[in-house]
Amino acid sequence: MKKIKVGVAGYGVIGQRLADGVALQGDMELVGVADVAPTLSVKALKEKGMPYKFFTAAPERQAELEAAGIPVSGDLDDLVRQSDIMLDATSAGVGAKNKLLYEKYGKKAIFQGGEKNTVADVFFHGYANYEKGVGADFLKLTSCNTTGLIRAVDCLDRAVGVEKVAITIIRRVADPGDYHRGLTNALQIDKAPSHQALDLMTIMPHVEATGILVHTPVTHGHIITVVLTPKKDISVAEALMYFDGHPRIRLVSIDEGFQGNASLFRYARDLGNPRGDMYEIAIWRDSIVKSGRDIMFAINIPQEAVVIPENIDAIRASMKMQLTRDEGTAETNTYLGIGKWKIS
Amino acid sequence: MKKIKVGVAGYGVIGQRLADGVALQGDMELVGVADVAPTLSVKALKEKGMPYKFFTAAPERQAELEAAGIPVSGDLDDLVRQSDIMLDATSAGVGAKNKLLYEKYGKKAIFQGGEKNTVADVFFHGYANYEKGVGADFLKLTSCNTTGLIRAVDCLDRAVGVEKVAITIIRRVADPGDYHRGLTNALQIDKAPSHQALDLMTIMPHVEATGILVHTPVTHGHIITVVLTPKKDISVAEALMYFDGHPRIRLVSIDEGFQGNASLFRYARDLGNPRGDMYEIAIWRDSIVKSGRDIMFAINIPQEAVVIPENIDAIRASMKMQLTRDEGTAETNTYLGIGKWKIS
Amino acid sequence: MKKIKVGVAGYGVIGQRLADGVALQGDMELVGVADVAPTLSVKALKEKGMPYKFFTAAPERQAELEAAGIPVSGDLDDLVRQSDIMLDATSAGVGAKNKLLYEKYGKKAIFQGGEKNTVADVFFHGYANYEKGVGADFLKLTSCNTTGLIRAVDCLDRAVGVEKVAITIIRRVADPGDYHRGLTNALQIDKAPSHQALDLMTIMPHVEATGILVHTPVTHGHIITVVLTPKKDISVAEALMYFDGHPRIRLVSIDEGFQGNASLFRYARDLGNPRGDMYEIAIWRDSIVKSGRDIMFAINIPQEAVVIPENIDAIRASMKMQLTRDEGTAETNTYLGIGKWKIS
Amino acid sequence: MKKIKVGVAGYGVIGQRLADGVALQGDMELVGVADVAPTLSVKALKEKGMPYKFFTAAPERQAELEAAGIPVSGDLDDLVRQSDIMLDATSAGVGAKNKLLYEKYGKKAIFQGGEKNTVADVFFHGYANYEKGVGADFLKLTSCNTTGLIRAVDCLDRAVGVEKVAITIIRRVADPGDYHRGLTNALQIDKAPSHQALDLMTIMPHVEATGILVHTPVTHGHIITVVLTPKKDISVAEALMYFDGHPRIRLVSIDEGFQGNASLFRYARDLGNPRGDMYEIAIWRDSIVKSGRDIMFAINIPQEAVVIPENIDAIRASMKMQLTRDEGTAETNTYLGIGKWKIS
Repeated sequence: MKKIKVGVAGYGVIGQRLADGVALQGDMELVGVADVAPTLSVKALKEKGMPYKFFTAAPERQAELEAAGIPVSGDLDDLVRQSDIMLDATSAGVGAKNKLLYEKYGKKAIFQGGEKNTVADVFFHGYANYEKGVGADFLKLTSCNTTGLIRAVDCLDRAVGVEKVAITIIRRVADPGDYHRGLTNALQIDKAPSHQALDLMTIMPHVEATGILVHTPVTHGHIITVVLTPKKDISVAEALMYFDGHPRIRLVSIDEGFQGNASLFRYARDLGNPRGDMYEIAIWRDSIVKSGRDIMFAINIPQEAVVIPENIDAIRASMKMQLTRDEGTAETNTYLGIGKWKIS
Repeated sequence: MKKIKVGVAGYGVIGQRLADGVALQGDMELVGVADVAPTLSVKALKEKGMPYKFFTAAPERQAELEAAGIPVSGDLDDLVRQSDIMLDATSAGVGAKNKLLYEKYGKKAIFQGGEKNTVADVFFHGYANYEKGVGADFLKLTSCNTTGLIRAVDCLDRAVGVEKVAITIIRRVADPGDYHRGLTNALQIDKAPSHQALDLMTIMPHVEATGILVHTPVTHGHIITVVLTPKKDISVAEALMYFDGHPRIRLVSIDEGFQGNASLFRYARDLGNPRGDMYEIAIWRDSIVKSGRDIMFAINIPQEAVVIPENIDAIRASMKMQLTRDEGTAETNTYLGIGKWKIS
Repeated sequence: MKKIKVGVAGYGVIGQRLADGVALQGDMELVGVADVAPTLSVKALKEKGMPYKFFTAAPERQAELEAAGIPVSGDLDDLVRQSDIMLDATSAGVGAKNKLLYEKYGKKAIFQGGEKNTVADVFFHGYANYEKGVGADFLKLTSCNTTGLIRAVDCLDRAVGVEKVAITIIRRVADPGDYHRGLTNALQIDKAPSHQALDLMTIMPHVEATGILVHTPVTHGHIITVVLTPKKDISVAEALMYFDGHPRIRLVSIDEGFQGNASLFRYARDLGNPRGDMYEIAIWRDSIVKSGRDIMFAINIPQEAVVIPENIDAIRASMKMQLTRDEGTAETNTYLGIGKWKIS
Repeated sequence: MKKIKVGVAGYGVIGQRLADGVALQGDMELVGVADVAPTLSVKALKEKGMPYKFFTAAPERQAELEAAGIPVSGDLDDLVRQSDIMLDATSAGVGAKNKLLYEKYGKKAIFQGGEKNTVADVFFHGYANYEKGVGADFLKLTSCNTTGLIRAVDCLDRAVGVEKVAITIIRRVADPGDYHRGLTNALQIDKAPSHQALDLMTIMPHVEATGILVHTPVTHGHIITVVLTPKKDISVAEALMYFDGHPRIRLVSIDEGFQGNASLFRYARDLGNPRGDMYEIAIWRDSIVKSGRDIMFAINIPQEAVVIPENIDAIRASMKMQLTRDEGTAETNTYLGIGKWKIS
């Protein structure tokens, strides 16, 4: 079988992980990655011995790349030409500009949550609306919080139906290593409703959603609390059963030692995952409570890696590699090693 | 009129503020404060020139107090004897022991949220169940989060009735100056339901409540999001109107510059309040959203000072200074200067 | 005696405290404060009942001030005209622009550390070079770290002479309430030598200085470690004696409970100081160690308030209110209540 | 050649990394690791498929291990019996107790910095005193800060001689994932001199050392500033040359993007190192400054992994695998892949 050729534009926090994820897919070939300058991530690529080809997205800064000794395999045009589909993980707003290039060469592309919805034909989530993405030329992924949240909501929705959700996003404000943003000893609130609630309604229009987002000065994962009104009354045990059946959801508990987002960050490092990443969201067993018919629970979102599987799903949908949600996500999961674990 | 004589046991974060609050009441007299050692707070009392008399709660440590030059007006027994009622703000568990002393001298007492409910005859909140406290000998106050939360829930409950609430407590993990506890770059989750939800149901048994608590590494105020199901559908404007009418609730907005808990902490300092404290909770206008009949909003809880007014209310109730909620809380508010402000 | 009329331009973190400090001086009159918009600090001024007159520095934004209900006593020109001398605490760079206005009306002015040295005739420190400022029209104060550092270095320099210093500044990265800057779980290093070392050499040209600055994610005070080579060998006890004799230096110890910058922040709040501020730097007794002739010690810098006394000194020097360092600083200290304390 | 059999007691932050480091040595065999309970690290070992054998150090808690499904290969006695030498990475104080067991079976052991010096025959550092450890039965390693610090000081000492050092340790207060310790918005100072300065003098008795330690609320690496008086005056360029020649020192710069400790943490993750670890200390090129003959510079200490190489060195010395510092450390470096990099 001919492998699908994938290029990655933007080699930052998300771009690096997308490249690693694609490289693990047996039916895909990573053509290379592109960025504009010899950032620390690009320097690390060099120190590792260039496992991926590097293309420059800013040929006018060639001198900087040479000074840093980065081998360059061509420019962004070259990468696009050599690829069947592009994963665009550039800074918000750049994707819309890059789209012109993708169109010029007649290539498909997947954009990230930071871009405007109008950049894409389909606002995509691997589990919630895979079929909408099948064959589409331009897909936009949901952001990290929304991606993780929808996994859980879609899971219960398919099981018993969901009427409405009210979410509180306790957002990590920066990634490890970020110096361009941060909060010090402060919680910061955004105007409600949060965009994640609105985005959930775009992807799952039959669910009513609202929410409040509060930024917190930490780097290792968002925590979302969800107050969810199911269409049919379910017990905590049933909810656990449904979540347990989802390959991209881990059930964890405080008693096991998972005291918060930092426990999960450490656990993933101890697992030896590349970069200490985790693709799965976690739901705390001992967070699940009921109030009337409503069910309330807390999710951990590993913001750096959580969107990688749904991005791979998007390639599968767009390139018609698999035509259904179950087949597409299963293939992604297999290659990423998702679902093999069983903590307790 | 004879002033009610009040003693304060425990001169830490809460005890200091209780003393300041009592000293402001025109119909009360602060007999003095007691603590076990020359802590920094006691040293600050001395540097200020001993505005309050100090009684030692650990006569065996007299030498330490002398070494620090703290003038001692007697021991805890003396303080209790000279007082009509004691505000006990000692560390959790000590209050139960002190109660024996209060009983010995036939004095009433008010305990804080850290004590077990069994220490008191009444679990008290100035606005939610003032009348229950009238004439009672031993009252226990709700904790800081519960105190602030109940203000808001009781406010809507009296207006339109409340069926149920699901809360997310984004808890500040330490007070400014704390070195004995703290989190670094981590969110920590507690087993659900949070005790604040259970406590709310004890005070307001007709409301169903549940909740999840997440500790965050900040010091300037908790933020609580509330998903509240009113008995009667109300608009956001109506909710604003009800909140605006409550003397111990400030309505603030992000547009004004109140970006989070730290803005409120700074604002209170800029006001010149003693210790930069704020007695009122704040509710963000731009956090209030609806989902079906449910109404969702975010509260800021200034944890160091929020319980002071309800403690003063408790004295009024216990000593039968005022017999009704409206009269008792109004008197407290007047002396504390609550309700004079009008930001926008 | 006719009081010196002082205006304050910029009503932020520093401007508010300058206004409070001037208001305490028996021989000065605070004409008023100016700012460009109804910030939270200006709203707090209003909620306090306008103890100071407010002048607008941006008449074109008059509508915003009216909407916020801020009484306006005139514009910045009016304030300058009514003042004998201006304290300029505007954002870095604005002072240079304002200087044209001060020159237009023939008024003197004091600028803060953020401005370029060229804005002023004299780079000023109340203790290190008071006499240089006497009669000067435009003075620039040292920044908060440099101001505190020079107090300690000048203290030893006058006692025994100082040859050189090597400093490590552990810098708080934001003030309480700041949302426009911050670090999350990261230390950040600046290129060496730090500007504070260079500034020290400008003020004290006979001392050789170098240093490294590291930003840390906290808000309650910088800590500076100093490795100081005195001209004459002194013991730790002698150093303590010299520091103890300086009115603007507090000696504290870990054993007393001063575990770090946050202890001092809390202590100042407990003292009931306006805004919980502290004018004095603190030096930890138990941080002072020797290595050969070198003496090493750690200073706490309360960044919000530390420069206030030296600013008042600058007014005294510039206006020739006192002609010598000892007289000028003593007068400032008396009115600010500095030096009355004695912790241990 | 027969491989040296190594056991690891304690499978926490350090123990895990020691096990990984030993497993990479071509001339050593990792017999297995021991711990007392199914901690998250042990659960991660299981999820990875048990690459290392697990021995229980608390047979009485066997039921917990079984409940967690951890395959157990024996108890701590078994591990000791099967090993030639033990790396003891248990909690401080436990090592002294374990020593009895090692003596019982006539096995050598390496202890970590948390144990008392008396537990060992030699207080060891791979570069500073390798030869002292040759053939010794019980060695104690320096702590993470001291290990990294000594690398740099020893490097200059061998080149030009070092007379004295004054250090400021800006200490990260917790490791990623720690919930049992932490600071929130506070710097905390220890009594001077810091133990690291004293330890340096124990290892390098010809150098005079003192220092101050300040805890900061971050998790990704300590930063130490060093004021070092060399015996012979050297230029910054010479210092750079000496540091550059040391295999376990990386020279980095702010201009490259290394803005602080978090940049290095991220860089190591991007490198794909196991757990995102880094064995090398980093020295910022642009932190090196001079004051008279003194040279000042800043070091980054990656606290989780920095001591691993020196621990491996200790095995080599104790087991007489190599008899000299140069041969021993070179072998360790080769197997750990240290010194292959060249960032700029």
